[in-house]
Amino acid sequence: MNATSFLLKGDLCYSVDPNTLRSVPNGYLLCVDGRCAGVFDTIPESYASLPLLDYTGHLILPGLTDLHVHAPQYTYRGLGMDLELLDWLNTYTFPEEARFRDLSYAKQAYSRFVEDVRRGPNTRLCAFATVHPDATRLLMDLLEESGLVAMVGKVNMDRNASPDLQEESAEASLAATVSWLEESAGRYQRVSPILTPRFIPSCSDPLMESLGKLQRERNLPVQSHLSENRSEVEWVKELCPSSHGYGDAYDSFGLFGGENCPTIMAHCVLSDDDEIALMRERQVYVAHCPASNTNLASGIAPARRYLEEGIPMGLGSDVAGGTHCSIFRAMADAVQVSKLRWRLVDSTLAPLSATEAFWLGTMGGGSFFGQVGSFLPGYECDILVLDDRRYNPPEAHSVQQRLERTIYLSEDRDIVHKFVRGSQLF
Amino acid sequence: MNATSFLLKGDLCYSVDPNTLRSVPNGYLLCVDGRCAGVFDTIPESYASLPLLDYTGHLILPGLTDLHVHAPQYTYRGLGMDLELLDWLNTYTFPEEARFRDLSYAKQAYSRFVEDVRRGPNTRLCAFATVHPDATRLLMDLLEESGLVAMVGKVNMDRNASPDLQEESAEASLAATVSWLEESAGRYQRVSPILTPRFIPSCSDPLMESLGKLQRERNLPVQSHLSENRSEVEWVKELCPSSHGYGDAYDSFGLFGGENCPTIMAHCVLSDDDEIALMRERQVYVAHCPASNTNLASGIAPARRYLEEGIPMGLGSDVAGGTHCSIFRAMADAVQVSKLRWRLVDSTLAPLSATEAFWLGTMGGGSFFGQVGSFLPGYECDILVLDDRRYNPPEAHSVQQRLERTIYLSEDRDIVHKFVRGSQLF
Repeated sequence: MNATSFLLKGDLCYSVDPNTLRSVPNGYLLCVDGRCAGVFDTIPESYASLPLLDYTGHLILPGLTDLHVHAPQYTYRGLGMDLELLDWLNTYTFPEEARFRDLSYAKQAYSRFVEDVRRGPNTRLCAFATVHPDATRLLMDLLEESGLVAMVGKVNMDRNASPDLQEESAEASLAATVSWLEESAGRYQRVSPILTPRFIPSCSDPLMESLGKLQRERNLPVQSHLSENRSEVEWVKELCPSSHGYGDAYDSFGLFGGENCPTIMAHCVLSDDDEIALMRERQVYVAHCPASNTNLASGIAPARRYLEEGIPMGLGSDVAGGTHCSIFRAMADAVQVSKLRWRLVDSTLAPLSATEAFWLGTMGGGSFFGQVGSFLPGYECDILVLDDRRYNPPEAHSVQQRLERTIYLSEDRDIVHKFVRGSQLF
Repeated sequence: MNATSFLLKGDLCYSVDPNTLRSVPNGYLLCVDGRCAGVFDTIPESYASLPLLDYTGHLILPGLTDLHVHAPQYTYRGLGMDLELLDWLNTYTFPEEARFRDLSYAKQAYSRFVEDVRRGPNTRLCAFATVHPDATRLLMDLLEESGLVAMVGKVNMDRNASPDLQEESAEASLAATVSWLEESAGRYQRVSPILTPRFIPSCSDPLMESLGKLQRERNLPVQSHLSENRSEVEWVKELCPSSHGYGDAYDSFGLFGGENCPTIMAHCVLSDDDEIALMRERQVYVAHCPASNTNLASGIAPARRYLEEGIPMGLGSDVAGGTHCSIFRAMADAVQVSKLRWRLVDSTLAPLSATEAFWLGTMGGGSFFGQVGSFLPGYECDILVLDDRRYNPPEAHSVQQRLERTIYLSEDRDIVHKFVRGSQLF
């Protein structure tokens, strides 16, 4: 089905703000030209002639946004969880990413990733590819074909990686990026490029300079990593002696948010007060990745503080630091680690509620894509239709309780229909 | 299929000790009268006439043991995760458990629980029922019929619960327990009773005295809760002013391990040095329940220390403090929280490895049932046959890597055949 107009009936549940869920049992969601035009208890008379998709008894939720995922790492999720970040990158990640030079390998691996995400609850994603422009375009082609909406980045890295992965020079990295951008231009409806310097340790100053210039010329969004792990933060201090911190290092190249530079920084586990103040000032998005921060023993990001300070934030699977693409899983993880942080580290930051975690995985991250992640009027119609009877016996729970259990208990197979911008994927 | 003798072919993987996995790709597991009689690379000549179950390409693992699960709480797993232990019990748990007075409600709820566990990876469980003798026998009947092996406890609680759940007196609680034991006697092949004082705050001194006496008369095993949550530990101090701690409170009634009193204590998050010394001396089993301790913000148990001190230990789902019955999930959770504990609390206790977590969920907990949880000679043939192609592309990984990914990525539906004591459940 192409983007169109319809009414969809079912048990609706969506966020209005971080602390408010709206539930409408047996409600009607009105989709007009791919956008929500209201939620009703009965069919509004003037729209009675629209097609009715009757999913009575099913749970209807907004699609989820994965703000941080490494598509090439999907192949080895669940393996190599015995190391911290820097050793993990060198031992597992870089050798695997080097294989994506081979387009036939890339096609096999990315096809599997895209198909699994297509069947799951995420409708939007911000993905890292690898340094390889051809394989990155292949990933973009596959995502476009899937019906998902995605920002995808060819990774830049001209230092501190293995020779078979690292780009030859800052100039070569920039040239590959420009050619990737030009060959991608005008090619996609749903997929768009995002500048992706891997992280400060992977990018020389000249490369960062030229990427900053490119960002300003083309108004591109940016994604990278920030203050994830202790050894990494120490290393950045050594690499950038004149910076006042990790965030400031990005900022010195003009790659740290602000009105014309929408930026996502993954992790922010160890950000200090100055960095947090800069993130707030520049409205840098935090991609909170609780599973990854646990698996790589990085720690627990102060998500409550970011919420309180008004820093924009969403959730990231960070596959393969995380093992599951589903942002439902990231919601449960976010609540769980926030409890451990409260108990073990800092009792002044209250745990996240399920309602807040759901907001983070829908409206919080979705806002990086515009009006995405709710059924409020004007929002793009990203819709999940769940048959939750496998874990929610009929009549036993309220719609809001069914949502809470869905966060903890749902599996991809429970999603029976999925729409992105009003178009039906299945 | 009844308990019998056969050869089973597939990619075998099992623990030999906490730090050693054995993998046998394309191996043969010999089952004689329900027990393992060896693992071979080729069919041993003298057994060539046995039936061959050919699961070539499938992953073959020992069944898992859930050392701590509350069967009646399965109905509301994934709900009410906003409170700590004592408020959670009063708000969610006790009202739900009170409903099991109604046998038709109990039948509906327990049927669902047993069927879901039957389809999952656990082959053995130590389960709490409720205070109700009839509903407890019903649960035992359903488990017997399922083919699982279980120890099941009618719960004792004569104080500090709601009037609709609490038993009337110590005498009434004891009498109900004795009658439950007598009516269960001789009734089951695979299910057996286990004494189950809920925890010190629920059981008066006279009740604990009489349960201690009953334990000694009938040589029953015991399960309860220990040092889970700060407020609970404080409360036990108030309730038992003459005890030297929570474990000592059980011990003063003769209900804390030792040769003739096999005992499981769930949680042990906050056990102090004296308590740990007593657990070691009495070889009290720790049921380590990482998901529950996270969800109820209890903290993280020092599992590494228990391993190092030689305290017997297995894993518990603790549904509904935990949300998932699968002990694969508990293995992943155990590794994950051990990393956070190492990072945030105590860097002297190294994180658990996947190999150690697998041992905990198989041999560690299985040993409470005897020779259970491995394919070493003499072990009972609890066997899982997994079709792991959904997440493990053929040929991509070694058998041990497939196991590691199974811990993180498998779902119940990936289990295609299951045997308990050599009998095929499906």
